[in-house]
Parts: sequence; structure tokens; C-alpha cells
Amino acid sequence: MTAPLHTPALIAKKRDGGVLSDVEIRALIDGAVTGEVPDYQMSALLMAIVWRGLDTRELTTWTRAMIDSGERLRWDDLPGPVIDKHSTGGVGDKVSVCLAPLCAAAGLFVPMMAGRALGHTGGTLDKLETIPGFRTALDPRAFGRVLKRAGFVLAGQSARLAPADRRLYALRDATATVESIPLIASSILSKKVAEGAAGLVMDVKTGSGAFLPSLDRTRALARTLIALGRALGLPVRAVLSGMDQPLGNAIGNAVEVQEAIDVLKGGGPPDLVDLTLRLGAEMLVLGAVARDLRDGTARMARARSSGEGLQRFALGVRLQGGDPRVVDDPKRLPSARHSRVVRAPRAGVVARADAGLLGRAATLLGAGRARQEDRISPGAAILMRAKVGARVAAGDALCTVHFDDPARARAALPQIAAAFRIASRAPAPPPLVVETLGRLR
Amino acid sequence: MTAPLHTPALIAKKRDGGVLSDVEIRALIDGAVTGEVPDYQMSALLMAIVWRGLDTRELTTWTRAMIDSGERLRWDDLPGPVIDKHSTGGVGDKVSVCLAPLCAAAGLFVPMMAGRALGHTGGTLDKLETIPGFRTALDPRAFGRVLKRAGFVLAGQSARLAPADRRLYALRDATATVESIPLIASSILSKKVAEGAAGLVMDVKTGSGAFLPSLDRTRALARTLIALGRALGLPVRAVLSGMDQPLGNAIGNAVEVQEAIDVLKGGGPPDLVDLTLRLGAEMLVLGAVARDLRDGTARMARARSSGEGLQRFALGVRLQGGDPRVVDDPKRLPSARHSRVVRAPRAGVVARADAGLLGRAATLLGAGRARQEDRISPGAAILMRAKVGARVAAGDALCTVHFDDPARARAALPQIAAAFRIASRAPAPPPLVVETLGRLR
Repeated sequence: MTAPLHTPALIAKKRDGGVLSDVEIRALIDGAVTGEVPDYQMSALLMAIVWRGLDTRELTTWTRAMIDSGERLRWDDLPGPVIDKHSTGGVGDKVSVCLAPLCAAAGLFVPMMAGRALGHTGGTLDKLETIPGFRTALDPRAFGRVLKRAGFVLAGQSARLAPADRRLYALRDATATVESIPLIASSILSKKVAEGAAGLVMDVKTGSGAFLPSLDRTRALARTLIALGRALGLPVRAVLSGMDQPLGNAIGNAVEVQEAIDVLKGGGPPDLVDLTLRLGAEMLVLGAVARDLRDGTARMARARSSGEGLQRFALGVRLQGGDPRVVDDPKRLPSARHSRVVRAPRAGVVARADAGLLGRAATLLGAGRARQEDRISPGAAILMRAKVGARVAAGDALCTVHFDDPARARAALPQIAAAFRIASRAPAPPPLVVETLGRLR
Repeated sequence: MTAPLHTPALIAKKRDGGVLSDVEIRALIDGAVTGEVPDYQMSALLMAIVWRGLDTRELTTWTRAMIDSGERLRWDDLPGPVIDKHSTGGVGDKVSVCLAPLCAAAGLFVPMMAGRALGHTGGTLDKLETIPGFRTALDPRAFGRVLKRAGFVLAGQSARLAPADRRLYALRDATATVESIPLIASSILSKKVAEGAAGLVMDVKTGSGAFLPSLDRTRALARTLIALGRALGLPVRAVLSGMDQPLGNAIGNAVEVQEAIDVLKGGGPPDLVDLTLRLGAEMLVLGAVARDLRDGTARMARARSSGEGLQRFALGVRLQGGDPRVVDDPKRLPSARHSRVVRAPRAGVVARADAGLLGRAATLLGAGRARQEDRISPGAAILMRAKVGARVAAGDALCTVHFDDPARARAALPQIAAAFRIASRAPAPPPLVVETLGRLR
């Protein structure tokens, strides 16, 4: 028998820069789930962690306790490697929608649990739900069935996996305690370990539209993810990708599904295609399906050019209750009532198309959520007509803005115009992949 | 019309070291009272303030918002200066019980709102409630009536004064966010301004038994109190007094009332008498009743030797429903069932009688509370028989321990023994008053 742990004393320990023991961390996480540690104590502790951090051992214990708070899926019966990808979130980042079916076509099983839009970055679930009938809430059996048959599944996080993370995440969002590298890392990896992935490629965004804009912090997060993954037995490979301008051309929900379908059909904007193939190649190498990145990229390209990725996508959509005819008939996706073109005020070269500003403007239009309870406007969108490096004449279109609510558009349009900068000379092209970290094999 | 303030954004601003505007601070404090800012957001904000602090303007606005959250008492009809004293809390600190009636006898009006024991320091309300019948919960009219007639009143904080502080204080205690100098200062001064004091003497304790043990932090708190008082129009004089060993000989509830009565009768331990007279002298000078500290001390000594302080005390006890016969008959105060003597293990001089350890041991015995819901054992006590500097033979009594629950005594006795250190040579005598800050007139 041990003495009962006094929660304020544990908070004080972390507040003063102390190191919490395994027993203390488990008591805190278990208490968060049972309610014995009420939200107001947990949020003070979370802020103390934002301040003081968690060391490697604390972070490993913290994450293990979150994993142990719920079920853990096993995929021993699947005839191929189970590899997942996770992005820290970017503007126009619809990679998951085209990546998962392409990887499935190339021989992986991808059990992707995605999130909803919050803040200025989009959410894969909101995008997928613009497909008529598509269900993102799957029970564990349905989740497994889709994964087995389609080779991929794109669904919401099961309430049974890492319930502690579910509780902490809602609290962190309401208390400005999201931006802590150990808390971010443990939130991501607890879910990925619980969902049974055998390897994880992390797309860690850096730049104005990223969750952590500075490269230093992005790199620190990538390193923490890799080290924590190692401690938990989950190989993690981190790709730091640029998010100073939006990825691809479409920002919104239905329009991003459409753009992902374009990629699966062999089209789509080059930056989106390149990043999709690159991340897929990393996944294929991590899953030992490909020898190296070159081989992986070739396999991804084949999955795309053969149309097998598109078929897998249609199959997955159908298995999740969605209307697969959206593949051939984009009109079946919702669209907004009104549109406006934002034009270049002068001739020159687009030097900036700020992803952070455009993401926030898209949220204003209704493409995202400022608060969890907000409703999405599925057709609200910004479609880029000129990206960084494009030469424009005065009056040329920079982007088209699609919206249902003119009042929201009035608020968003000046911000969208302000996101663009036209210069006289072409800027250095923004890098798509800044660097990669973590062992591949 | 202004845009609604988004609480997480305000928390994030403070988390990142930003400065909150007056509008933002008022929205947060008002929201804490209405519940629009729930506890879990407020506790994250409080931890961010522990981390980042509040600058002078923020602190003044924060405190004003707390004052404005409730009523403000006015004492224009009283025929003398209204001066209060407040202590940051020490072990054996029963000064208020004898100081208030002595000051009243010397011509002041003392509207003292006191607190309950929490942690290792005692609470004046718990002490006074050991007097049979004594009521500490007074409505504002009864509070004013007692103050007018007795010249002093010792009661609990009215729920109508600074309700924001009441709410924040309970939260801070549960979330390890008490130890923040701006938060401490605003909590104290919001109540003192709301209770209508025209001047305040702060007894800021320093040493092992103090709330802030280090002299640096004690001094920083004293300076903050003085500056904040100035901004709020409340003159504050800070006396930094030593709390390395307990004040006086009695630690407990009934025993401390008894010791305070001893002081009023002309007896009592010298350190307690000296500090009481000194703090009273400061109050008399602050209230312009005395010319200087020397004059003030003489007036306090006369109030004591004339027996007028004792009479005031008996009057105040009677007006608050208590049995004034405790003054002549200490047996009317509760006492514990059992006692044990802790003895010197060897001959020498008492070099340490650690106030922090003794305070925590007294709490264990039942004299204080580890949690707000704990009940006090009114007779539980430690009576010092030898203080720092006393020469003892092996086997001489160091203190007597009084208790009701032998199981609690078993836990406390080793800690009490460990609080004493016997050395061969006499240590430097511990200072009673370390320094004073703030203008007197």
C-alpha cells in the first residue's frame, strides 16, 4: 500500500522543474480518465508541462500510460505490413486522401485515424464527409473489415483507443496548452501505437502555415517523435516539409477531395503529387516493400499510373458508405453558392502566398473551425490560381474564393489579398521537403 | 461593440510572455465570476501567470477587477482611523488575536478579515472558534456593529467582498498556483481594499516556516505589496519577520488563543510580545495616532499594562457570541486527551527548532488541515519548552505534544524530534524583525 498521491503536490513538482516518477505520471493519467484528477488540475499541470517540459523517461511513461488507458489493436492476420502516415497539419494538406489508397495499391495496409479541422489547418474527416454518405465513425470491427478489404481505412479516432489522449486533447485546445513538443508527440504516438501501426512516417510541417512555424521547433518535434517512437518500439521516419504556401491549389473541403482524386487519376498540382509520392516511398521502405526511396517512388508512381490507387479509393469510399461516383462526377461533391476572383494589383512575380493567412481566411469563410462546435461549410474554398514563383500581369487572377455567406467573404477577402505579395524578381523556389530524420530501415 | 474575446488566445498570450490589456484582464476576471471562463481555463491561465508574472499595470488592473467583482465597505462614520494588519502566515502566529484588541484600545478601528488553516500554517478563524460560542461568520451589518463597539472585529471574509478572489483562491490552492507573488499580492490587497482599510501593515514572514521561505522572495512580495497598495491608494507598510522557529511557545488552536490572552494580561513569551507591540506601533503610526514607532510602542504597552486591551478582547468575544469567561478560566477552552514530552537526546544548546517541520507535524496532529475539507482537532498542540538559544541537559523537555489520536501522534512525534537540533555552542540569536519596507507616513 502506498500513500495517496496529492495532486497539487505533483503539479507543484512539475511547476518547480522537478521530474515526475512513473508512479506519479500513471496516477495523473489514470486520474484524468477516471475524473479523480479534475480538468482544472490537469490544465494547470499541462501548462506547467508547456513551461518545464517532460524528460525522455517522463515522456515515455506518459505516453505508455495514455496507450494503456484504452484498447490496442492488433493486425497479425493481415498479409502485409501495417504502416501509417501522420501530418502535423497544413493548409491544403489533402495528402492522406490520395496517399492511403496509393500505398494500399502498392502493398501496404494503412489504418489511418484522422482528425477534424481546428484552427487554420483542415481536417481529413471533414474533407471525406463531403462525399455523400461517407461515414468516418467506424466501430473497431468495421474499421478492421475496411482495412483488410481496401488495404486502407480513413476514419475518426475510436473512443476506445487512448481515451486519455481524447480527454487531454480537448482540454489542451481550450487552455492554450497544445504547443508543447512532448505533449504533441505523446498525443500523436499514443494513438498510432494503439491503432497497431508497425511503422510511421511523420510529415512535420514547417513555415507560416504550420502548427509550429519555426524550423527549430519543427526539428525538435521531429527528433522527439523519433526518440519516443524508438522507446515505444514504433519506428518513426520524419519528413520536414515546407508549409510557407498552401500545398496544392485547393484549400477547403470538397475541393480538396476533388484535388486528391485528380492526383489518383494521374493529374493534380506537381507539389502535391511530389509530396504524396515521396511520403508513400518512405512508407514503402519502412514497411520493407521497397528497397529504397527510388524503388518506393517508382512503386508509388506505378500504383498511380495503373489506376489501381483510384480503384482502391473507390472501393474504400464504397466500403465506408460513400458514393463512389464522385470519382467520375465531381458535381456530386458540394459546392458553394458564390465566388469572387482575387486579382494581382500589379505585374510581377508571386513572392509570397502566406499559408497561415490563407488558412485563417479559409476558416473565416467556413472551411474550418475556430471552435470545436462550429459547423463546416463544405463548399467554402480558396482555389489558388498563381503560386509562389508564378509570373502575373496586373489584373490576373491570384485565386478564386468560393463561399456561401457574403458576410464571411467580406471579412475574409482583404485577408486573402494580404496573403499575396507581388515582387519584381522571382524568389528562390520554396523547398517541398526541407530534410528527413530518422532511420529508414 | 467589440469582438468577443477568445479565452484560449488570452491564455496563449500570457503563456508566451505577452502583456494582457485592461479589457482582456477585466474579461477574464469577470468571466471567472460568471463562469464564462471555466475553472480549467482559469487554472491554465494562473499557471501561465506563475510562469510569466504580471507587470505593474496588469497587476493593478487584475486587483481592481477583483475588488470591483463585489461590494466595498466604507467606514466614514467611525471616529478613528481604520487600519488593518495581515500576515502571510507563520507557525504559532496568533498575533492578530492580541494585536487587534490592543490597537483598538490605543484608538484604532481594526476590521480584520481572517482565514482558516491550510498547509502548515494556522488560521486565525480556527483558533477563535475554539472559544465556546464564538461566531466568525458575520453578515456585513453585524461586522460593522462589532467593529464600531469593540474597535476591532475578527471574522471570516464576507462572500460579498472580492468574490473573484474567493473563487481564484480555491482554484489556486488545488492547482499549485498559490506561490506567485503577483497573485498573492492581488489576493491580499483586493480583500483589504474592499474591506475599507485606510492603511495596512503587512507582516511578511521569512524563513523555513514561512509561505515563501527565501528572503529574496519575501522581499519581492513586500515590494510588490507596497507598489500595488500605492497604485490602489492603500498605504502599505511591510515588516519582514523571522519564521525559522515558531512564534511564541504555543502551536495549535486553543493553546494559541490562551497564549494571546496571556499577552493581553501582561505575560506571554517575549518574542510574541515584542512582535505584537512592534506591529501595533506601525499601525498606530500609519493611522496617525502615534508620532513615531517609539510613541506607538509606548501606546501599545500602555494598552496592555492598563488591561484595556484585555477588556476590549472580552467585549469583542462577547459581541461575536463567544464566552468571555475564557479570559479568566482557560479550562473553558478545549484540550486534547493525551500528551507526550519530547526530550533532548543530549546536552547542549538548541540550535534549531524548525518552524516548517513543527508546523507540518502540528497539522498531522490535527491542529491544521492538509485539505480544505479536513476537520481541526482544537486541542491538538505542540507547546515549546525550549526555543533556539536555550541550554538543555540530556533528557530535558524540548516540547510537549498534545493530541487526541495516538495514531496521528505516532506519525508526528519523529518529525517533531527531527525539528530540533542540539549543538554544543549557542547559535546567533534569530532576528525577530529582519527589515521594514514602505513609507510610514
